[in-house]
Formats: sequence, structure tokens, C-alpha cells
Amino acid sequence: MPRIIESVPNISEGRRSDVIKAAVDALGTVSGVRVLDVQSDKDHNRSVISLAGDEESLPAALLKLFEVAVERIDLRSHEGEHPRAGAVDVVPFIPIEGATMADCVGLARRLGQAVAERFQIPVYLYEEAATAPHRRNLEDVRRGQFEGLAEKMRDPQWKPDYGPAAPHPSAGAAIVGARMPLIAYNINLGTSDLEIAKRIAKGIRHSSGGYRHVKAMGVMLDERKLAQVSINMTDFKRTPLHRVFETVRSEAERYGVSVVGSEIVGLVPAEALIDAADHFLRLENFNPRQVLERKLRESE
Amino acid sequence: MPRIIESVPNISEGRRSDVIKAAVDALGTVSGVRVLDVQSDKDHNRSVISLAGDEESLPAALLKLFEVAVERIDLRSHEGEHPRAGAVDVVPFIPIEGATMADCVGLARRLGQAVAERFQIPVYLYEEAATAPHRRNLEDVRRGQFEGLAEKMRDPQWKPDYGPAAPHPSAGAAIVGARMPLIAYNINLGTSDLEIAKRIAKGIRHSSGGYRHVKAMGVMLDERKLAQVSINMTDFKRTPLHRVFETVRSEAERYGVSVVGSEIVGLVPAEALIDAADHFLRLENFNPRQVLERKLRESE
Repeated sequence: MPRIIESVPNISEGRRSDVIKAAVDALGTVSGVRVLDVQSDKDHNRSVISLAGDEESLPAALLKLFEVAVERIDLRSHEGEHPRAGAVDVVPFIPIEGATMADCVGLARRLGQAVAERFQIPVYLYEEAATAPHRRNLEDVRRGQFEGLAEKMRDPQWKPDYGPAAPHPSAGAAIVGARMPLIAYNINLGTSDLEIAKRIAKGIRHSSGGYRHVKAMGVMLDERKLAQVSINMTDFKRTPLHRVFETVRSEAERYGVSVVGSEIVGLVPAEALIDAADHFLRLENFNPRQVLERKLRESE
Repeated sequence: MPRIIESVPNISEGRRSDVIKAAVDALGTVSGVRVLDVQSDKDHNRSVISLAGDEESLPAALLKLFEVAVERIDLRSHEGEHPRAGAVDVVPFIPIEGATMADCVGLARRLGQAVAERFQIPVYLYEEAATAPHRRNLEDVRRGQFEGLAEKMRDPQWKPDYGPAAPHPSAGAAIVGARMPLIAYNINLGTSDLEIAKRIAKGIRHSSGGYRHVKAMGVMLDERKLAQVSINMTDFKRTPLHRVFETVRSEAERYGVSVVGSEIVGLVPAEALIDAADHFLRLENFNPRQVLERKLRESE
């Protein structure tokens, strides 16, 4: 069975379409790699590229991406709203099928080492690949941004995992890691009272005592005049969709409010939905290998 | 995106392992075809083979299967509990992904014509490929079995769709068609009262007034001392899992009985489970293309 791993490199270029195209084209030259999506934001001056491949093709393709970024992006003259530390700013590896988190951590290390050796770019490992707890969180690693890198690296606590303890003059540093797929999941409430959505969000998110792998906030859908609990699920295996849905439903009931619907924004791993079906249908002994499409892929 | 079509040929041989092996091997010689499963039953003297491929590879592989079956299986000396009309008895085509039922009907016609021309075997089209309503149902087409074919074919109502209006001396006739995937789905009740399972089964099955695409009966799980509603879902798009589950739950409640669990036997298309998640999570505007694995396959 072919292993499927996703990577979502973020590059610090969202305006010059020729540079973005060169970066995407470079990824596509490696056989076995498929570019799934490219989102460029001019205000952020940043592009987010989704690609899939295996343990051999992904690092090869990403090195080609670094090549283009190092040549064409100079952070000394880069402006944008989104925080960034490098020309290729962040590279997470995400296990999709037939691959484990450990595989993705191994990939992050391999790529980090290769980037440092080949381009003299310092590399930090983050999230599941982090080498110390204080380096897990992306925001902490990136704090100070490109402009603050030289000073940050003088602190032994922030010595890079690979490469020189000084930023690359134009390309800064790279932050490479491994994490679970993110699911953007919103639950719409049958009320226009934003306060209720905010209270429910507070109840389910990790930062204020809720589920370990949930980020959430209350927002207003102005057109529909509905309050929404807007959620980021950061590990659907450990905090599953159905549990969050049922908790929001129960919390909303306490205000006499119903759940009118929910929505998934962007891509979702099949497993996250199949787990929900498994729960609500009360399946006994269901094995993901009973899914026909998976059986097909395994027989490839 | 590659089209994925499944075929589940049933051959009238479940005892001689060398013949079964030769049949399976013949299918495997065609590139693009994957044999997913082989189930042989000695009492039935029959084997059920599951394979997947596309519109080009599947008919090529199935013709090779007919070649082996015509050479090695002689129905004049065939005995077994399961009704059969041919050496290759039944061949359904099933749309899985990127293919429509119309594609599968087209495939059934192409294979039927080729089998008739090449082997002088009369062919009936059944289910979605049937050329008249009285030929839809497999059991009706097969009634009379191999031994009754000569007489049956004299009736203009039962003139074969392709080939001579007389059975092949040793290989009989073939019944080729198109249908939706079957899902074997059982719901376990918190009672040892078989009568309750039987009544619920009667309420949900098509033949006694229930859902159009449900076959069901009540059975006893002796070891667990639980009554079970044992279901065949013949079209999960039109009669979905969640509706049957909820109906069984509601009917059971009327007897004060709870649903303790359900089970899927064998393979299930991802879509059937994703549809259930869609229902229970009250998803709004969910598009199956948001499923990551599908996006991956589409980009192949």
C-alpha cells in the first residue's frame, strides 16, 4: 500500500505571481508528488501550498521549493501582515494514510538537516517534531520574526536544531515539523445572540478548560443572522468531531437554542467522517479496512 | 481521475482449488485489474470473486475468466446447493467512483455481446441493465437453472439478449448486469425476543411495505442472546444507512427495546458512511470532493 503524507509549506510570497508559479512548478517536477491546492494572500504576502506524496518524493520536492524561494525571496525587503521567519517559513508533514506521526517526525528531521546543509539555513523543529517542550508551539518559535532572529539565536534556549546559529541573510530560518491534519469545523446555532456562541466556544476550547485539541471562538454570520461556534480541530483522532458536536448541542440546549447545522471548510480526512458515522450508527468492531476505497488503495 | 468500477463474478466452482486458482490467476493477468477478495463455498460449489478496474481492463479480464470457466467447468456434472444457470453464472458491474450506473450498464452490454460472440454462450442482461422489467430480478432470470434453460429459451419472453436462443452445452448461460454496491448491515437489539426483530424487519423491508432498497429479516445471535435485524441495503444512495438505523431505533423503542449496536459485514463504500456523518452532524453544503483522499485520487 502506498504511504500518503501531506505537506503544507507556507512561503513568504503572495504577490509576485511569477515567483509563486516557479515555486509550485518546482514542486511538480518531482514524480509522485501532487499539488492539491495553492492559496495566495496579497495582504499577508504569503502562499500556502498543499501537496501530497510519499517519504521519498516529498523531501525531494520541498528541497526544490527551497531552491526557488532562496533565489527569489529576500526577507530584507519583504512586507506583509502575516508573521514570518523565513522565505520558506513553515513546513509541516501530516500523516494521511499508511504513515504514522513517527514517520512524519522522521521526515521533518531529514528535510531540516538537508535544508541546513544545502542552503546554510538554520532550521527549527516544531510541534510533534519539537526537541523541547518550549519549541512545540509555532507562534513561540516564530516570535520575533525574521528581524529578531539574530538576537533570538544567541539565546541557548533558541539554538536552531540544524544549521548555523545565525539567520540566512535573505532567507532567514525555516520551521519544519509534523502535526495532525487540521479540520476547520463550524457549528451554526439557531440564535442571533453572539454571546451564546462565545460562551459555548469558551466551554469547548482547550485554552479555557475545554477539549485538548479544540480551538474555538464565537462569530456572527451577518447575512444569515446566526451565531456560529467557529472551531479548529487540531487532532480529530483524540478529540473527534462527534464529541464536539454533541457537546455544543448540549450546551446550546441549556440556552434553549438548537443546532441548525454545521459545516466543514476545506478538506477533511475521510477517517474523521467515518469515525462520526461509527459513533452515531453505534457500529460494533468496525475496521477502517472494511472501507472499499481503502481496500482498493491497499491492493495497489 | 481514474474511474473505479467493481465487478463480482460468481462462478460455478467452489471445490476444485486448481480451477478456482486458474480463474483468479486469469483475472490477474490483465493490468489495471485488482482482485480484492475470493470466497469459495464447497456446499454451494460456487466462488464469488471481487475485483476492481476500469472500463477497459474489466471486460478484458472477465473474458479471460470466461475462457477458463468454459474450458474447466461442465454444468452437466455440476452439483451444489446454490442455484446456477452458467459456468460463469452472474457478473454484475458496480459503480464505485468517477463512474455512473450508465457506464456500468454500457459495460454489461459490451461484455454480454463479447461473451456471446466469442463463446456462443447466450447472455441475459439483469438489474439496471435489464431490457424488460420482468428480467430485472436475478432470481427470475435464473429460475429453472441450467437444466431448464433449453425450455425457458423457447419462450419469446426469455429470448436471451445476446447469443443463440439455446444454452451452451457445458457452460449454460451467463447473466450480466449492473447494480449498486450491496451493504450487509445488521442492527442488534437489547432483547432476546426474536419476535421483535422479526416485526421490525417486516416493517422496514420493501417486500412487506418498507423501504424501497431494503431486504431484512429477524435472526437470533445465540451466543450473545440478542435478537438482530439482519439487513441487505441494495442502494445506499436512495435508502441511506442512517434512515434505516433511525427507523429501527424508533420501532424498537415502541417495545421498550434499545439498539445496542450495529455492524457492517464485509466492505462498504466510504460514501455510505460519509453520508451518515453528514446526516448526524447536520452538515450544510458538504461536497464529497472535500474528502482529502478523494481529492488525492482526483489528482492522480
